[in-house]
Amino acid sequence: MVGKPLSIEEVEVAPPKAHEVRVKIVATGICRTDDHVLKGSFPNIDYPVIPGHEGAGIVESIGEGVTCVKPGEKVIPLCLPQCGECSSCLNPDTNCCLKTHRFTCKGKAIHHFLWISTFSEYTVMPDSAIARIDDDAPLDKVCLFGCGFSTGYGAAINTAKVKPGSTCAIFGLGGVGLSVVIGCKSAGASRIIGIDINKDKFTKARELGATECINPQDFKKPIQEVLVEMTGHGVDYSFEVIGHTDTMVSALASCHMNSGTCVMVGAPPSGSQLSFDPMLLFTGRTWKGSIIGGWKTKDSIPKLVSGYMEKKFNPDVLITHTLPFDKINEGFELLQSGKSIRTVLLF
Amino acid sequence: MVGKPLSIEEVEVAPPKAHEVRVKIVATGICRTDDHVLKGSFPNIDYPVIPGHEGAGIVESIGEGVTCVKPGEKVIPLCLPQCGECSSCLNPDTNCCLKTHRFTCKGKAIHHFLWISTFSEYTVMPDSAIARIDDDAPLDKVCLFGCGFSTGYGAAINTAKVKPGSTCAIFGLGGVGLSVVIGCKSAGASRIIGIDINKDKFTKARELGATECINPQDFKKPIQEVLVEMTGHGVDYSFEVIGHTDTMVSALASCHMNSGTCVMVGAPPSGSQLSFDPMLLFTGRTWKGSIIGGWKTKDSIPKLVSGYMEKKFNPDVLITHTLPFDKINEGFELLQSGKSIRTVLLF
Repeated sequence: MVGKPLSIEEVEVAPPKAHEVRVKIVATGICRTDDHVLKGSFPNIDYPVIPGHEGAGIVESIGEGVTCVKPGEKVIPLCLPQCGECSSCLNPDTNCCLKTHRFTCKGKAIHHFLWISTFSEYTVMPDSAIARIDDDAPLDKVCLFGCGFSTGYGAAINTAKVKPGSTCAIFGLGGVGLSVVIGCKSAGASRIIGIDINKDKFTKARELGATECINPQDFKKPIQEVLVEMTGHGVDYSFEVIGHTDTMVSALASCHMNSGTCVMVGAPPSGSQLSFDPMLLFTGRTWKGSIIGGWKTKDSIPKLVSGYMEKKFNPDVLITHTLPFDKINEGFELLQSGKSIRTVLLF
Repeated sequence: MVGKPLSIEEVEVAPPKAHEVRVKIVATGICRTDDHVLKGSFPNIDYPVIPGHEGAGIVESIGEGVTCVKPGEKVIPLCLPQCGECSSCLNPDTNCCLKTHRFTCKGKAIHHFLWISTFSEYTVMPDSAIARIDDDAPLDKVCLFGCGFSTGYGAAINTAKVKPGSTCAIFGLGGVGLSVVIGCKSAGASRIIGIDINKDKFTKARELGATECINPQDFKKPIQEVLVEMTGHGVDYSFEVIGHTDTMVSALASCHMNSGTCVMVGAPPSGSQLSFDPMLLFTGRTWKGSIIGGWKTKDSIPKLVSGYMEKKFNPDVLITHTLPFDKINEGFELLQSGKSIRTVLLF
């Protein structure tokens, strides 16, 4: 129920039907989006609901016609599926599979983020929402590739296409924001400015590649003015990884007025309105959204996990806490108090 | 004076100083932006002012150190200069030269659109704000390359990078909007939807490549819903070429929620605020501004004029009226009443 802690219940998980897969979840991260579900601020959710969308597990059984995975294989459930057949899957410029959406908002489809429901020891999903990964992958670590790491890293690599030598600003240094930092560093950005009102996040941000970290509360003037002064004409790329309308506008205004790109990564509050001076865009800025880092999930998440196995990047440092599943509410308290980056729950 | 018709006066045009050029204007278009100056809605203008920024002429004399043009050569004054040395000129992703800006707005530089002041038989500009064109170019036609045609055509070609086979919607079918239509057709778009509340614009839009034209006043539902229904999931590219905040949001909502690009071409009202649901962006749309079609002006406008001479595109059809310069106020009346597309004034 909205506003109450999660309760752990025995549920019956029906066997997989045709083109469905039943997965034994081994590990699952707690993401801010799950917290939005708890607080009732995620749009169009029917309650009661089993949240959780950043998991890793092992195929328990498969339904008729499933060819992409076999029982016993390690998998990551895809909170954004990839059917491979719809117009979006066939379009190289988007990763938002249309076949599997369940929600509508104001008459338009909203993709189902959460139906894989990884806060369940067993869960069933269609075969378009599952990706097989390396047999050697540590599930208690790579569950982050199901959402947080892929979302932030991809926002920098895919959506913004950060160029070597560029300047980047990241608003919000939680698990996703820090993954943006990893992506910016990996893309060769020469200056990476982390922004958060919680200074406890700065050590980790610097460890991952941030060259400077600033707290808006340390300045009298708006943070966008601070960033423009720090950089001359604003940053090349800014990322809003909080989900507040005011920081969305600050992030837009922080990037170069003629060539800056601002990426909206944090989910906006349901039904919110954002107000800004359109001159900010008119002069040449680009503003764009990014879901799951723009990755075609089924194609890309296994490759990202392989990159991790080859030590191309190491999001392990994002995992600050590992708890048994029955301490799930403790995990949410750590998130809400700003004490954790990512908590991973183990079944 | 704001709100009054233009008065024609004798002015003294000082000889060119070092790195300046004096030009005899032969022809100049009337652009909506000039009308904004008359109405006082263009930001940070000091009055009295000589508007006009879409001209073509002949070099009369040059100051010390000018090497790019010689007296007698045909030129187009650049309302957006290109110094070739500043960080923007050196950045392939923007065309907004920083060296020559004169305005600031909220502490940030706003580029001077109008300082070339082509509503004057003689006018002086720095050599970074002038481009030599073909000796054979008809000045009474190619003056449109100084603003309107280049702005619209480039918004499609450069800023949106319209792909072959795509679907486009253009909000506003004035001179710039029709130039967007030309650009979309030239890029190989298979469906080009023109939108205007003035049906008189539809014939010309169809002639230039629009496959459908619709009038929002013919529908009970918002035009973005009409466009989404017409196209299944929204258009691939939408262009707002009016400068109203409400149509800016409609244009954004009209493009594909996950892969659509919306280009803001119309200048927003000075000091306006635009309010929209950020979910429109979060789901994957891209929203961007475009000034003078994204062209590096000094490099590109001569090439566009050459393309015109080679009959690659023909914006002549945009010129509905040609008047002697002393009928300038009649030209503005034609613009304001929606009876003209482009009026060219001849000295």
